[in-house]
Amino acid sequence: MDARLVDKQEIAEVVLRYCRGVDRLDFELVRSCYHDDAIDHHTGFDGDADGYVAWLTTLLPRLSGTMHLIGNLLVEVDGDLARSETYGTAHHWGNPLTDPSMNFTSGFRYVDTMERRDGVWRIAERWAVREWTRSIPADTVRPKEGEGPSPQRDRSDPVYRAWRQP
Amino acid sequence: MDARLVDKQEIAEVVLRYCRGVDRLDFELVRSCYHDDAIDHHTGFDGDADGYVAWLTTLLPRLSGTMHLIGNLLVEVDGDLARSETYGTAHHWGNPLTDPSMNFTSGFRYVDTMERRDGVWRIAERWAVREWTRSIPADTVRPKEGEGPSPQRDRSDPVYRAWRQP
Amino acid sequence: MDARLVDKQEIAEVVLRYCRGVDRLDFELVRSCYHDDAIDHHTGFDGDADGYVAWLTTLLPRLSGTMHLIGNLLVEVDGDLARSETYGTAHHWGNPLTDPSMNFTSGFRYVDTMERRDGVWRIAERWAVREWTRSIPADTVRPKEGEGPSPQRDRSDPVYRAWRQP
Repeated sequence: MDARLVDKQEIAEVVLRYCRGVDRLDFELVRSCYHDDAIDHHTGFDGDADGYVAWLTTLLPRLSGTMHLIGNLLVEVDGDLARSETYGTAHHWGNPLTDPSMNFTSGFRYVDTMERRDGVWRIAERWAVREWTRSIPADTVRPKEGEGPSPQRDRSDPVYRAWRQP
Repeated sequence: MDARLVDKQEIAEVVLRYCRGVDRLDFELVRSCYHDDAIDHHTGFDGDADGYVAWLTTLLPRLSGTMHLIGNLLVEVDGDLARSETYGTAHHWGNPLTDPSMNFTSGFRYVDTMERRDGVWRIAERWAVREWTRSIPADTVRPKEGEGPSPQRDRSDPVYRAWRQP
Repeated sequence: MDARLVDKQEIAEVVLRYCRGVDRLDFELVRSCYHDDAIDHHTGFDGDADGYVAWLTTLLPRLSGTMHLIGNLLVEVDGDLARSETYGTAHHWGNPLTDPSMNFTSGFRYVDTMERRDGVWRIAERWAVREWTRSIPADTVRPKEGEGPSPQRDRSDPVYRAWRQP
């Protein structure tokens, strides 16, 4: 059972790193979550990991930001194979804020087949199941620069700060 | 401490399986999350596990779908007894999409007493605390069939796919 | 690796207890999540732990309630130091329900430096990064008293119920 706990934690972290990669435009991190021959089934994309990341690389920078908030993460492990289901909501925003094609929230589930190869768990196949999509109301506001810690989509985001005090 | 980690993981999985059961209309799975003499306190229901599942069995199929997204899951274990608090939002949709009694989101907490009997953790008593309810805006859209991986409320959902490649 | 699992669980529970403390107005619990010399960077506040809790103590009772729902919790441990990133949405409500300064939801990330001192993990430095803020639609309703298990912001909330049956 202890070994399984470790597996489940490692698998959960694959999904968590995927979300961080997407939201911070760290495409290398996104790519590292997939095996080389992995398949991804998304609304608007169906193909391999390199193709998926290339698609994201074109799509995501058009938006001003995204936030992939995930909750339920239920993993079943069978040796070097696992299935995980993750629930989440994805928040998207862009300019102009009134454009519904860039300002929406979707509810989704990632249904993943995970495989451990050479000791490392990665996605072998993903079904990104979309449950619903909702326009974001026009009164949504983004934080103003300097108003408080603000998010960035590059290495200047607080999550990349040095965490060893000098 | 390690034993506690296993307990906490098992308890979390009870809550996760409950959500899957509700959202996929797998009532057997929902029922298996409760001990036979368990009590459930819900808005609109107060009684035992069989009664609760019977109530759900009548109620849920009227909707087109639900999504019980959970986050915070804080578990305190004391031998074979545990208390867990789970935060979540429940998304409900149904036809017509303009009917607010079928199209709403609620914020809730599950406050559970869990008991381990014969080595298996299940809910002994649940308080489903509702924090707020909000109508879903009419511009919410459901994915069109064939537009991408789409959710199902039966065994044809991707989460039940064979995950062993032949 | 097992030791790391325990560390990650303990760190996650710091963040979970923080949320419970804020939502139940248990300021002692909130304070216990920080080291004495911890620094908190929030929108509207920047300073030490005592100052932060004093600020919350003034601010939170003006609202009728809050719900800090967290999801993604990615922790990296390095000895007695760790970095954790937590995603969440914070729901706020107050009277009158049409006042947008009291009725809003925000998307945020907590970017924390955690330190273990005397065997206990606590926050050493927090950046509360706000991603977006959104008014809550006026049709949000709170549960009526007696309609079902209802939330409280004191020790009468179900989460504090005795969980040992007599």
